[in-house]
Amino acid sequence: MDAVKIIEQIGTAARAAAAQLAVTTGDKRDDALRACAAAIRDAKADLQAANEKDLAKSDQFGLSDAMVNRLKLTDERIEGMAVALEQIASQVDPVGKTITGYNRPNGLRIEKRRVPIGVIGIIFESRPNVTADAAGLCLKSGNACILRGGKEAINSNLAIAAAIRKGIESAGLPAAAVTVIDNPDRALVPAMATAEGLIDLIIPRGGESLIRAVTEAATIPVIKHYDGICHVYVHSDADLDMAEAIVMNAKCQYPAVCNAMETLLIDARVADEFLPRIVAKLEAAGVELRGCELTRKICPEMKAATEEDWSTEYLDLILSIKIVPSRPAAVEHINKYGSGHTDAVVTNCVKCANAFAQTVDSSSVMINASTRFADGGEYGLGAEVGISTDKLHARGPMGAEDLTTYKWIVTGSGHIRE
Amino acid sequence: MDAVKIIEQIGTAARAAAAQLAVTTGDKRDDALRACAAAIRDAKADLQAANEKDLAKSDQFGLSDAMVNRLKLTDERIEGMAVALEQIASQVDPVGKTITGYNRPNGLRIEKRRVPIGVIGIIFESRPNVTADAAGLCLKSGNACILRGGKEAINSNLAIAAAIRKGIESAGLPAAAVTVIDNPDRALVPAMATAEGLIDLIIPRGGESLIRAVTEAATIPVIKHYDGICHVYVHSDADLDMAEAIVMNAKCQYPAVCNAMETLLIDARVADEFLPRIVAKLEAAGVELRGCELTRKICPEMKAATEEDWSTEYLDLILSIKIVPSRPAAVEHINKYGSGHTDAVVTNCVKCANAFAQTVDSSSVMINASTRFADGGEYGLGAEVGISTDKLHARGPMGAEDLTTYKWIVTGSGHIRE
Repeated sequence: MDAVKIIEQIGTAARAAAAQLAVTTGDKRDDALRACAAAIRDAKADLQAANEKDLAKSDQFGLSDAMVNRLKLTDERIEGMAVALEQIASQVDPVGKTITGYNRPNGLRIEKRRVPIGVIGIIFESRPNVTADAAGLCLKSGNACILRGGKEAINSNLAIAAAIRKGIESAGLPAAAVTVIDNPDRALVPAMATAEGLIDLIIPRGGESLIRAVTEAATIPVIKHYDGICHVYVHSDADLDMAEAIVMNAKCQYPAVCNAMETLLIDARVADEFLPRIVAKLEAAGVELRGCELTRKICPEMKAATEEDWSTEYLDLILSIKIVPSRPAAVEHINKYGSGHTDAVVTNCVKCANAFAQTVDSSSVMINASTRFADGGEYGLGAEVGISTDKLHARGPMGAEDLTTYKWIVTGSGHIRE
Repeated sequence: MDAVKIIEQIGTAARAAAAQLAVTTGDKRDDALRACAAAIRDAKADLQAANEKDLAKSDQFGLSDAMVNRLKLTDERIEGMAVALEQIASQVDPVGKTITGYNRPNGLRIEKRRVPIGVIGIIFESRPNVTADAAGLCLKSGNACILRGGKEAINSNLAIAAAIRKGIESAGLPAAAVTVIDNPDRALVPAMATAEGLIDLIIPRGGESLIRAVTEAATIPVIKHYDGICHVYVHSDADLDMAEAIVMNAKCQYPAVCNAMETLLIDARVADEFLPRIVAKLEAAGVELRGCELTRKICPEMKAATEEDWSTEYLDLILSIKIVPSRPAAVEHINKYGSGHTDAVVTNCVKCANAFAQTVDSSSVMINASTRFADGGEYGLGAEVGISTDKLHARGPMGAEDLTTYKWIVTGSGHIRE
């Protein structure tokens, strides 16, 4: 069967399931989420047997050690998936929430009410626990989902989906609410991205080439983030102890993630004082440093940063450092080289903090806090389906509420238009 | 110069203007809107001279009488544009509004605050007053805009833009906040729709072929509506006088617009009573009727509706009528053949009204009110930039607030992540 037909078949079943989900109560969906958690725990042996098959092929796919590690379904990770589903169940229901409601002068009642989007397509790579998280958030928000994972995790993903579908059915909801595509054909990706009327939204998660391919093929809306080139700007009015703690945390606490800092901007007015002390700390922590010309005047042994460094997401213990003359110059650098993900300022100056927040064009702006807080859990959204560096619909960490849209419900008493 | 280069040049100027607009106060933007209104009034003679040039070519473009009429910049229409700009100025500023704000248990302050989107591209056909409305709403919401109108109105659009740019500059804001493209090259449309990093959102307004071409080419987000196949469902518990008034209003008050009714669904339990009386009224109003089999059992002279009728947007005094056995059957018909625009139920039954509102997958659901109310002005949004039948970002009538996105602004006191 060709790719378009396969997606038509899966999409039609998902669309029907979505119509059923849209009229369920929040209690019913939460029961299903808890049943999914139980089913995941019950299926531990099956999940690990399926995972073994994927791990056995990891050489064949040329996976790095880090990727193999991410692929492993350990006891802890399986329990983690179950707990995440239970946590999603315990959140407030986003469906049915009134965004705004008011009466018009003619007595017409206008209400903007949250409803599920419908069918969400998620295309992702490696980590199989994305399957459980994404399915859980879609179910919570009353959406059906179609998941397309990477071929290197296909057995694990299918086993997780089987457990989840069992949980959903045991709660009296349709199994087609969650489908993991079992066919590795690459043509399915563009077929998903053009399935107008069947899929309402595509969320690609993974490397830039995957995301670009989805975006270029798509005729349905896409929400995505390419990368996280996050900055910390240490202003002249910064508390330098605070700046040191934030810089070290933003770079070193977990360098492999998208909200880790990649470039440090230091105001020229505090560079002589701050640069040597932070360089000593960073080097002691094993961070490789690459500096601008001014930085290298103060620290001549530092490697020179190239133009490319300013737009590189290292995801590693590497940091580029630039000395800037002012807050506007820092913002200009961030808006030019950044990725609109998360950027921080350390300052005690209210004027500087406000101007930074207003002019930096990023989904999250941190004032005197580490970039590492840009995360659905830290923002109190519960689990997150991803982080959007797009500007439409959802920006920054996306929780269950971001998987809803709204309806205008207008109530009259026989109103006609004059 | 090729299309991509032209859009690069215009987009770069618009991006710089957007950065300036993003830090203006609402007062400043409202002053500019009022200056634009004055400039439009001052330029009346120029606008009408430019409009004459377009009208002289209307034969060459094969415009219908209705299209020629829409193209005309009469005294009233010019005054109407100026008044609309003043009304937009008098609305509340959507920029800076806090969507949600709270403290996390660790003391971190999280705020989701409305900010402009950046640069909006609008691609439209014929009516030149769209130029003023769209520019006004973008300016209100702190966005720069790039407008691409139809070739049949190019002189009128450029003259309107010249007046608006004069108004914007006289208020001390950058003229590049509003650009009307003066080049009729068709290649500019896909170039706009793929201008990632320069244009943040494309809104196509016009015929289906234009909208489809934009959607297929686009790699940046698109918000659109194809058509308005709106339904009124007369339930068995309807007040039939109310039903009659709503049906007549929804079909006849302004049949050429997207929120006019195209299909009437009558519950079988009231068909014998309601159908003959509404048919008499509709025929007296000159409406051509096309009925389903059951309808024609009661009214045998009526023309038969074909399968195609159910998915046709007549935009004229034509109506298809179907008798349905129940509310679920009505909803099934609407979700199958409708366009997700606006659908109404007439009923005194709370259960029916709620179930209809919950299950009809439309941007606006009317309970005991005419479909004709689906409109930004009637919803109290002021002017509207269009109606979205998409589900992402904005749904239904879109006002100035729908041209904003948000930023997460996170304030700590040296918070680092454990």
